[in-house]
Amino acid sequence: MSNIKVNIRGGAAPPGSLADYLKNVKLKLMTISGKGGVGKSFVSAAVALGFALRGYRVGILDGDIYGPTIPKMLGMSDATLYADSKTGKIIPAVGPLGVKVVSIDFMLPSEDTAVIWRGALVTQALRDFISQVDWGALDVLIVDLPPGTGDAPLTIAQSLQGGIDGSIIVTIPSEVSRRIVVKAIDFSRKVRVPIAGIVENMCCFVCPDNGKIYYILGEGAGRKIAEKMNVPFLGQIPMDPELSKHLDGGRLHEFLSSNNATTKYIEEIVGALISKYGEKLKQEIKEERPKRVSLMKLPGEDEDQES
Amino acid sequence: MSNIKVNIRGGAAPPGSLADYLKNVKLKLMTISGKGGVGKSFVSAAVALGFALRGYRVGILDGDIYGPTIPKMLGMSDATLYADSKTGKIIPAVGPLGVKVVSIDFMLPSEDTAVIWRGALVTQALRDFISQVDWGALDVLIVDLPPGTGDAPLTIAQSLQGGIDGSIIVTIPSEVSRRIVVKAIDFSRKVRVPIAGIVENMCCFVCPDNGKIYYILGEGAGRKIAEKMNVPFLGQIPMDPELSKHLDGGRLHEFLSSNNATTKYIEEIVGALISKYGEKLKQEIKEERPKRVSLMKLPGEDEDQES
Repeated sequence: MSNIKVNIRGGAAPPGSLADYLKNVKLKLMTISGKGGVGKSFVSAAVALGFALRGYRVGILDGDIYGPTIPKMLGMSDATLYADSKTGKIIPAVGPLGVKVVSIDFMLPSEDTAVIWRGALVTQALRDFISQVDWGALDVLIVDLPPGTGDAPLTIAQSLQGGIDGSIIVTIPSEVSRRIVVKAIDFSRKVRVPIAGIVENMCCFVCPDNGKIYYILGEGAGRKIAEKMNVPFLGQIPMDPELSKHLDGGRLHEFLSSNNATTKYIEEIVGALISKYGEKLKQEIKEERPKRVSLMKLPGEDEDQES
Repeated sequence: MSNIKVNIRGGAAPPGSLADYLKNVKLKLMTISGKGGVGKSFVSAAVALGFALRGYRVGILDGDIYGPTIPKMLGMSDATLYADSKTGKIIPAVGPLGVKVVSIDFMLPSEDTAVIWRGALVTQALRDFISQVDWGALDVLIVDLPPGTGDAPLTIAQSLQGGIDGSIIVTIPSEVSRRIVVKAIDFSRKVRVPIAGIVENMCCFVCPDNGKIYYILGEGAGRKIAEKMNVPFLGQIPMDPELSKHLDGGRLHEFLSSNNATTKYIEEIVGALISKYGEKLKQEIKEERPKRVSLMKLPGEDEDQES
């Protein structure tokens, strides 16, 4: 079996819900924010790695088409997507801790080219990603939605109607962001995805010299909104120059494996998600092999009963 | 003359470039970022107020349709847009220091409603704003583009082809953001808007207790990119809990009028823009009155010669 370069314009995704394409994934979460730059992609990557550190099989669908930073954080900027020459399916790139990643970033000709894509093209590219990627069996898939509540996030969320178990809403502790979170909650409800909870990123700065906590952007807005809107609060993550350096260097996984105090915050968030979705993570998933036509039934081999 | 509530679905903007509609504005700048959440809207508002503090007549077109935070920062969340009953033109809301503001935010039914608008609707709303707002004579108009390099910013930038004097590119000092700035530069060049320069927001944190500067997100990436890409560096702005509080409280103008050390950084950026565009700001602009049909010419009154 040889690998070929993906041509995403090849087979177009069929119309309708694409939720069926993720049947082999036990837990499907999407990260969402009513606004960009609050660290949504960072939270996606951190949560994904957090699950992977606990031994789960994890995938990330980086749908943040206008600012795909996940490959960079994971040191995967040079990765390329390939397609299986037989099935035509896209094979995800494999990053640190075995995390499988699919990002539009892998298909850009140059990292400095602006992705000036019209809405319809973005829509198609995202649908193709969902329908054409061969994730294999996964415990957790994190779908990192584009920022905002516009076309691109709407398209993915709608494409996966009925297929997403929960949305992680990412915010920062600023009052200006309050309404933006509320918009994300509103968006999540409109596309009928249950809310997993709120993560407050950049909650504060723990001064390495005097140990004091500075609430630079505001204090506790995330938890307050969660309480007010009656949705779970998953946890918070401080600003940390060490974390920034690791992100810049594409070594988020090393940071999470270290004993840095900030990693505890991320572990707590992952712990909260595992508590919430424990049952789903335990379920047995029969791996589908729809492309496989068995001419001879071997002893002990299950025949696919579905059409 | 009575005011009526605006119905933006009324008169649709004509096709083609809308640059002519801004003829009465001496200096037209747009703020852009390849990514949301770097403080683009904050920089727009701060620069606008900075010009206003120096006595310039300033307007802000808040095109950040998915996260309109400018009205909130300026304490104008309750403002409403009206239309002149005779001309049908939209009259901007007037905020602190006389700054005229037009924002999609003023037209939302509830502040907590997600603006789930399809691309075509966003496009039309933005074009309508450009063609139907009666700004009067302005020295400076700041067009705050939606984040990213997608449909919405592309639409406005294209709509104003030939009409924008420069783009202010906003970034944060993270290496992850480097390529995102490069994308903004690329975008700016593609839509043929000269680059005014780069502003590095959230450059650092000056500890109020020990006076030390902490480069939480990274150090000096903005200036480095500017040098590497051969575009001007306009300045940087630190993170500041006092600034955050003022933003949250809708009192950015009070902050800028205070003696806080952070305000000096913003003054420097405005100073750099004034140096760059001094000639434009000095030019005489004849106010156009195309809708005015004078039945009687009064003594000393200029008759509009244009059709």
